Amino acid sequence: MSQPYEKVALIGLGLIASSMFWAMKRHDPSVHVTGFARSAATRDIAREIGLCDAVCDSLVETVQDADLVVLCVPVGVMGDVAAEIGPHLKAGATVSDVGSVKQAVIDAVAPHLPTNVHFVPAHPMAGTEHSGPRSGFAELFDNRWCLIVPVEGSDAQAVKTLTDFWISIGSNTAHMDPEHHDLVVAVTSHAPHLIAYTMVGVADDLGRVSDSEVINYSAAGFRDFTRIAASDPTMWRDVFLNNKEATLEILGRFTEELFALQRAIRTGDGDHLHDYFTRTRAIRRGIIEAGQDTDAPNFGRSAK
Amino acid sequence: MSQPYEKVALIGLGLIASSMFWAMKRHDPSVHVTGFARSAATRDIAREIGLCDAVCDSLVETVQDADLVVLCVPVGVMGDVAAEIGPHLKAGATVSDVGSVKQAVIDAVAPHLPTNVHFVPAHPMAGTEHSGPRSGFAELFDNRWCLIVPVEGSDAQAVKTLTDFWISIGSNTAHMDPEHHDLVVAVTSHAPHLIAYTMVGVADDLGRVSDSEVINYSAAGFRDFTRIAASDPTMWRDVFLNNKEATLEILGRFTEELFALQRAIRTGDGDHLHDYFTRTRAIRRGIIEAGQDTDAPNFGRSAK
Repeated sequence: MSQPYEKVALIGLGLIASSMFWAMKRHDPSVHVTGFARSAATRDIAREIGLCDAVCDSLVETVQDADLVVLCVPVGVMGDVAAEIGPHLKAGATVSDVGSVKQAVIDAVAPHLPTNVHFVPAHPMAGTEHSGPRSGFAELFDNRWCLIVPVEGSDAQAVKTLTDFWISIGSNTAHMDPEHHDLVVAVTSHAPHLIAYTMVGVADDLGRVSDSEVINYSAAGFRDFTRIAASDPTMWRDVFLNNKEATLEILGRFTEELFALQRAIRTGDGDHLHDYFTRTRAIRRGIIEAGQDTDAPNFGRSAK
Repeated sequence: MSQPYEKVALIGLGLIASSMFWAMKRHDPSVHVTGFARSAATRDIAREIGLCDAVCDSLVETVQDADLVVLCVPVGVMGDVAAEIGPHLKAGATVSDVGSVKQAVIDAVAPHLPTNVHFVPAHPMAGTEHSGPRSGFAELFDNRWCLIVPVEGSDAQAVKTLTDFWISIGSNTAHMDPEHHDLVVAVTSHAPHLIAYTMVGVADDLGRVSDSEVINYSAAGFRDFTRIAASDPTMWRDVFLNNKEATLEILGRFTEELFALQRAIRTGDGDHLHDYFTRTRAIRRGIIEAGQDTDAPNFGRSAK
């Protein structure tokens, strides 16, 4: 497959954008990528490590010749960026994004785009606990899923080209409507992150157990939570504020189940606990079989 | 360091016992290890893979010559095993265990042991999501912590020898009283496991999102929970039933914090969320620096 777009602009130069850059170059070095970050320090790092063919000092310069413009900024500022770039986009260009919520992004971005560009929102379901321009790597999207979320009236060819683009940088793809997308990610990503943040906060706060005890004895389970609770705070604040309804729905279900299990512990209902714990093993097997995780013990972490 | 015990008996042949066997042999092949499992099928597998120098068909035969007897069975049956082996222990032998709770094990086991043996409870803080006799490996305890929890009147030399034993198979060690132990593990292990089980159960149950969606899109956070939610159901049922108070206390604190964060989402209090998410990053850094986890993205999982 040839490069679906000749010129690509990345707005925001964090984990996802930098991984997209390296993955695009892996697929076809001839693609020309411009990049922009609000912070001068980030732009300096990008220039230093060769991230993007040109790092620009203005949004207008970044986007004006691009065939594809990808918004890789926190969900809460996508509307502002769209307002700024809207008047300067090339006719026929495609605007996309990598935000973890979709309805709120569509509501914020769509009104600012001229009618002669295509808007095709997307969400690559991949990430690590690291952030910033140095954190990207070409393999991030390999065998992960990118959800393409067309808006009403999206041009079929523009949707197909963006789909081909994500496939070219390693992803599997699926199409989904915004509402369902926001519920799916509330379950698979947003609620788990909030729960992990909460558990780590509780451990940090508990006066009777010291932080060094929590840290030293974390290998018995706790440390798995800390990985995702180390993710970028600004990004996650915006995710929760912009996917309120679905996240609160899932957290409501979670609390209900947790109370039922707490009650089983309090009343000594061992059968309820055993049945519940047996059922959850099947989901793990499914994830291994789908190639979405490793079966090596401890995720294949080496003993140190 | 020479082998602290010449003859060791392992009761129960799951992940921990089988890892102890391979770690003992790595340290000093001359140690003689007998093993017993209630299930004939498990004993057959142990014989087939060379797990233990002798796999015995009775508890009495397993323990009668041993200098160290280690109970590696679920917490809920340790009292029964102690009652059965008590009259057959060698004078001067040490009895220990690897249970994840300590006060309940002490209450269940101590009354059955004769006065001429030493009882020194212990808890290796290491594990994987796999179980059974085939799941063990010699490196499981390397640089992990084993908590030694002496009982009132424990012989100082017996405590020291058991401590040396755990060091000889790779562990760091610390001493702790039973009550504090049970609280520390409620935070670092028991509550996180229950929370992971709950989240996986909720995802499995949610009619509007299919299991295949949960599985395919799990890389965005959810899959980290599924690893520990795949752990042995019987072991974990017994853990929760035998560490009720501390687990319920931590879950109470957890729910309180979770409600506060849910409220911040509902009211749009972004500062509260951002502050909370920033604080939790420090704990993660501590765990990396203490060598209890890897800093490689995704735990160093390879893309597949």
